[in-house]
Amino acid sequence: MGRLFDEELKRLKERLLHMSGIVEKMIDLAIHALIKRNKRLAQEVFKYEDEINMLHIDVDELCIKLIALRQPTAKDLRFITGAMKINSELERIGDQSVNISENTEIYLSYPEVKPLIDTPRMAEIAKQMVRDSLEAFVKKDAELARSVLKRDDEVDGLRDQIFRELLTYVVSDPTTTRQALCLVLISRNIERIADHATNICEDVIYMVLGKDIRHHIERKK
Amino acid sequence: MGRLFDEELKRLKERLLHMSGIVEKMIDLAIHALIKRNKRLAQEVFKYEDEINMLHIDVDELCIKLIALRQPTAKDLRFITGAMKINSELERIGDQSVNISENTEIYLSYPEVKPLIDTPRMAEIAKQMVRDSLEAFVKKDAELARSVLKRDDEVDGLRDQIFRELLTYVVSDPTTTRQALCLVLISRNIERIADHATNICEDVIYMVLGKDIRHHIERKK
Repeated sequence: MGRLFDEELKRLKERLLHMSGIVEKMIDLAIHALIKRNKRLAQEVFKYEDEINMLHIDVDELCIKLIALRQPTAKDLRFITGAMKINSELERIGDQSVNISENTEIYLSYPEVKPLIDTPRMAEIAKQMVRDSLEAFVKKDAELARSVLKRDDEVDGLRDQIFRELLTYVVSDPTTTRQALCLVLISRNIERIADHATNICEDVIYMVLGKDIRHHIERKK
Repeated sequence: MGRLFDEELKRLKERLLHMSGIVEKMIDLAIHALIKRNKRLAQEVFKYEDEINMLHIDVDELCIKLIALRQPTAKDLRFITGAMKINSELERIGDQSVNISENTEIYLSYPEVKPLIDTPRMAEIAKQMVRDSLEAFVKKDAELARSVLKRDDEVDGLRDQIFRELLTYVVSDPTTTRQALCLVLISRNIERIADHATNICEDVIYMVLGKDIRHHIERKK
């Protein structure tokens, strides 16, 4: 079965990379909608949701089929079950991008509070974490996975900074509370995207280095 | 292999229920520490973290072994890969309980802002969602799983209510900002526990009803 199976594993990797490309695009669109104050862009995100949901189901089916038909060795089996977990994380990243768009639509129905600097920066880091986590998976690169875990602290730092800054706005002008709430929710959506990327990286490290390592790695707070 | 394999599947279920019992206890301890202002209780949560981490690895190994040795049918295979996903969710619920305890320790180093009513209520719902999601898994009960999904809205409602109330405190007395930030972080930790329970329920519904249903169910925001 060697070569055929290798082809199938390759196809599995390609599908996950394709999914990752789509969710990265969804993050970009959602954040552009927010900073350009463009509702049309926010709605474009929703169009990709069905595509991600279909791919999610397809990849899960493909994995089950590969396990059932090919009866892979423990190593390949661990790769395929890892792919199933990563598949779920990608689908949830898509969900969070949809949530950003929904919160953006509400945000845009109020006057602007402040120019947004930290939010797009936070989103850019989270998106890069998603991309690198997939690269770490495909290349079975535990070092890259570890480096992604470290960036999660930066994301959490920006989230706290955004929160504190918004509090100062609300304290000085309570009429901005609704907009502030939207921006807090959006920063939380971005934070979760970063969390999903760290989940992927923990799975990659486990897959590559085996069972001893997963709970000795840098823990997320 | 019939009876032996059934025994093994039963053992797998029991381990997941045991894990669920521990994380429910961790949630309880963390919230009691918060409302009783008791740092010792907060530290007890950390003791359970290692146990959950060990169980997480054990269950993952058991699942891989079952698939490799027993070569289960598609239906049993789906149950076992479902168990692997649920295993990861339970471990992350344990992580969130640890995060609640850490945020509680910081919170307790400041004077009290207000008596806490909504936070323990929110935690109680989230804990019940975790318990019911495991019951839905073990009993393959899609209806129960659906009912858990619906409760997620209640959790999100409480989170928003807590946030708005804390804002009014901060607006009227900006010296309470640090305590308010701790309570916002804690409400977010609880929200994520509820999210993990909904993830488990989505997996259960998929496992029971098959591939068409997962993306037609009530979506979480």
